[in-house]
Amino acid sequence: MQVIPPALEKLIENLTLLPGIGKKTATRLAMNILRRPPSQARELARSLVDLHDSIQLCSCCFTFSESDPCDICAEPRRHADIICVVEQSADLLAIEKTATFRGHYHVLHGVLSPMDGIGPDEIKIRELLARVANGTISEVIIATSSTVPGEATANYLTDSLKDRPVKLTRLACGIPMGMDIKYADKYTLAKAIESRSTAL
Amino acid sequence: MQVIPPALEKLIENLTLLPGIGKKTATRLAMNILRRPPSQARELARSLVDLHDSIQLCSCCFTFSESDPCDICAEPRRHADIICVVEQSADLLAIEKTATFRGHYHVLHGVLSPMDGIGPDEIKIRELLARVANGTISEVIIATSSTVPGEATANYLTDSLKDRPVKLTRLACGIPMGMDIKYADKYTLAKAIESRSTAL
Repeated sequence: MQVIPPALEKLIENLTLLPGIGKKTATRLAMNILRRPPSQARELARSLVDLHDSIQLCSCCFTFSESDPCDICAEPRRHADIICVVEQSADLLAIEKTATFRGHYHVLHGVLSPMDGIGPDEIKIRELLARVANGTISEVIIATSSTVPGEATANYLTDSLKDRPVKLTRLACGIPMGMDIKYADKYTLAKAIESRSTAL
Repeated sequence: MQVIPPALEKLIENLTLLPGIGKKTATRLAMNILRRPPSQARELARSLVDLHDSIQLCSCCFTFSESDPCDICAEPRRHADIICVVEQSADLLAIEKTATFRGHYHVLHGVLSPMDGIGPDEIKIRELLARVANGTISEVIIATSSTVPGEATANYLTDSLKDRPVKLTRLACGIPMGMDIKYADKYTLAKAIESRSTAL
């Protein structure tokens, strides 16, 4: 006997494809959607369909955007000679929220991961090298994650760009702001000691 | 300047309407959907639209179902004289999973909550009283949550049905199976002591 109606089962199944959403959460979400007015479900469905229809990759920095070039690349007051290299568009958004960076970006759409068959050609590395090769770039900030594949990608980029006349920088690693030192993990703490700066 | 494309912003906004999904999770989900093939987003959208189109309330027990009466009410081998009253269809699914109950259900679609303007007429209480009034019901199991509104609803139902020739029962409260007694909260433990049964 079919206790869960097939249409509900289908929605649950599609929701579980999303990251961090298991069967239980998907069921809770689907039951909640079912209890709300149908117009809300249709509105959500419409925004899902519209998403890929109206968003593309910026041909310059490869972030998701409704226009090409994207608003960041098109903004004349930003420093086009500084490129911040990030793994994903979500990292770009996180950096934009800090309102401390006024340069351009380059979204790799992944990290090097030979085990998964992801080499330099599978992510936007060639495109980055081409941007740097045209000679207008003065600094490349490598802002990949401080994970093993993130570090490997950063090392690859450093190696590929070291002979270019550009300044190569990395984000600082250390104790998160507001964190009690006794709660910092030993690797972060070791890095913070190693990268210590002079007190004023 | 618009950093998040409007179509992405719209999807994030619609996702935050779901329970337990805040702005951060919604952004993560939306970025993930954007990175997947458009066909997956469309498939999810289709299942959202189909949901309300194909699911209705069973006119007997008021659970969500694609057929009317629902599969449970239509199943001849189930005991139609025992009604298990639950708050939501999700509770029905949870009870069905135990495979220990072979009677029928009645979904209230809510609990009494005078502060929120939810009285007996706002949930399916009148419909339950009518089902009991027709004289074919021998037992009503009140399976509302053991929360304040759940208990209030259970008390209201007990009061409304106490003069009817039906057995009124409640789910047992006590220590969850497998739980160490020292970790049980004091209210549960008090209830477990109060409702103790004779050891064989």
